[in-house]
Amino acid sequence: MNKPSKKSALSESGSKPGSANINPNSAKKIKSFRRQKFTEKELLDQLLKGDKTALGRGITLIESNQQKHQERAQKLVEGALPHAQKSIRIGITGVPGVGKSTFIEAFGSHLIEQGKRVAVLAVDPTSSVSKGSILGDKTRMENLVKEENAFIRPSPSGDSLGGVAKKTRESIILCEAAGFDVLLIETVGVGQSETTVHSMTDFFLLLKLAGAGDELQGIKRGIIEMADAIVINKADTGNEKAAREAKLDFKRALHLYPPKESEWTPKVLLCSALYNSGISEIWELIQEYQELVKKNNYFQHNRHEQNKFWLLQTINEYLKNRFYQNPLIKKELNDQLKAIENNETTAFAAAKYLIKKYDSL
Amino acid sequence: MNKPSKKSALSESGSKPGSANINPNSAKKIKSFRRQKFTEKELLDQLLKGDKTALGRGITLIESNQQKHQERAQKLVEGALPHAQKSIRIGITGVPGVGKSTFIEAFGSHLIEQGKRVAVLAVDPTSSVSKGSILGDKTRMENLVKEENAFIRPSPSGDSLGGVAKKTRESIILCEAAGFDVLLIETVGVGQSETTVHSMTDFFLLLKLAGAGDELQGIKRGIIEMADAIVINKADTGNEKAAREAKLDFKRALHLYPPKESEWTPKVLLCSALYNSGISEIWELIQEYQELVKKNNYFQHNRHEQNKFWLLQTINEYLKNRFYQNPLIKKELNDQLKAIENNETTAFAAAKYLIKKYDSL
Repeated sequence: MNKPSKKSALSESGSKPGSANINPNSAKKIKSFRRQKFTEKELLDQLLKGDKTALGRGITLIESNQQKHQERAQKLVEGALPHAQKSIRIGITGVPGVGKSTFIEAFGSHLIEQGKRVAVLAVDPTSSVSKGSILGDKTRMENLVKEENAFIRPSPSGDSLGGVAKKTRESIILCEAAGFDVLLIETVGVGQSETTVHSMTDFFLLLKLAGAGDELQGIKRGIIEMADAIVINKADTGNEKAAREAKLDFKRALHLYPPKESEWTPKVLLCSALYNSGISEIWELIQEYQELVKKNNYFQHNRHEQNKFWLLQTINEYLKNRFYQNPLIKKELNDQLKAIENNETTAFAAAKYLIKKYDSL
Repeated sequence: MNKPSKKSALSESGSKPGSANINPNSAKKIKSFRRQKFTEKELLDQLLKGDKTALGRGITLIESNQQKHQERAQKLVEGALPHAQKSIRIGITGVPGVGKSTFIEAFGSHLIEQGKRVAVLAVDPTSSVSKGSILGDKTRMENLVKEENAFIRPSPSGDSLGGVAKKTRESIILCEAAGFDVLLIETVGVGQSETTVHSMTDFFLLLKLAGAGDELQGIKRGIIEMADAIVINKADTGNEKAAREAKLDFKRALHLYPPKESEWTPKVLLCSALYNSGISEIWELIQEYQELVKKNNYFQHNRHEQNKFWLLQTINEYLKNRFYQNPLIKKELNDQLKAIENNETTAFAAAKYLIKKYDSL
């Protein structure tokens, strides 16, 4: 994009009155576009029509850290809410090298063939540090990115997983309001990011490679427990035996866990995203899941619980931040920690003291 | 103990002036004992001399939920602090049936033979519900309970794990001030109780039985990760093969984890608490650990981090409780949850609203 001229967009288009190429209406549109001074109403209207440019612009507002943008974003999200919720949100995770992008390319293309509109978002708490965000390199999904019915957005940068999560949750609402009915939320699995994605999706898909012992890592990190499906990718020709063995290993691992509240029994599937095999079976499985959880009401119940979780999470974070970021408390906390170290007080007495200080502010 | 008479202890002993059996000094002591009106100073003095009755009484003050008792308890704990900290705190966990009591009986007796003074405490968040607390049945440790140098205290009852943990942490300080230099903190492993015990001990010992596949449960629940030693109990005659296999399984499981910050490599040992075999090796291992972590300074560092954890934990709990127990917030929270369900607001907007309400109170 060109560097914006200091001259206003108005004077620019106004400098060519009666130009054969631009009718006054178009000029008005361009002006408005250049200034990016859409009202929330205009943006919302465009977005509800399924306009991807408006959707992208809305998400940009959400991702902005400017107070003014955040206020506009909130209005936009609130306007979008009654039109949202009509989708299935699928969390996709797996270690680097497992083939997430190739999988999303194949899976997303299949969904579009089925008449779906597919939005791909990402939660990547490392992107702000490394400046390399997942999904940032869209060429890895060269077919999907060209599709009219696909919307791909890299992970927002943020200074905390909580911040990234908030932005992604709100972006989900805009995507849904824009008529995207399958949402794929990708994460690379750093720290708590899988748990975060799990807490904002309806179905959680774990991508794995055939490889002995790997299932123990998944058990260890609590990821197997969250999975609704484990998909062993790269189950290509020549790799069948290892893939079948991995399937057995993961099936055994899944048996460690008590039945899920959703009444769904997690499945292990094989696929080759590269050769496009096993992809349609995965979508069939997810539809089977969706049917079950809509029938037994777990779908709505789970979304409600997720909303409650995010509400409490946001409040708790706020209460903590306000306490610990108070300059006096910062100093006093330091002093109390020293006193504990010197055996002059206990953790509990120190806590009581700090709270008293805080309350007297 | 007899039901206390309504007549005061003073008039009771005073009713027998010049009794041959009781000199005026003893009478005074009995009076004071019956009324339980020790000053904190008196109690502390007795406790610092290693008096088990005083220690028991101090812990009773800690466990009391009465405001007055809590104030006295806090003074007592503060007075004990400079004399505490000189111990090793060993966390012991394992599922019911693994033989924890038999193990503690054998291990504690061995420690006393080595000239140690041993206090046994328990963290059992279920005791308040089931009314059956662990260590409550002291006959399960019939030898240890008779030892002058042993102090055994059942789990305090409490309405929350946090409450039980606070009481246990403060009891630890009193035990240490009373000269007990090995503390065994037992837990049965319900919910988060292992993590809680881990966060208040120097060494974490996981008791296991020989049994194929069991190691996966430990990995799943994150317990293997915390263990400094895994002891396979009931490695008796006839059970050697299963025990050796279990040892290999757990060794493999331990290899899943990155090196510990303590620089200690967790070990797997076999023992039979019933036949008293393998017990001295466990104490040797713990001494080896202690030597390492005192040398590399992890011992002090870890206790400092634990204190910090408990300080922050206490503050966070308090901030949350105060918010959510506010009657207006309770009502408003309910309304906001309904609004979220009706797609009228988002979790984040609702959080913002509730915090604003809270701040205007």
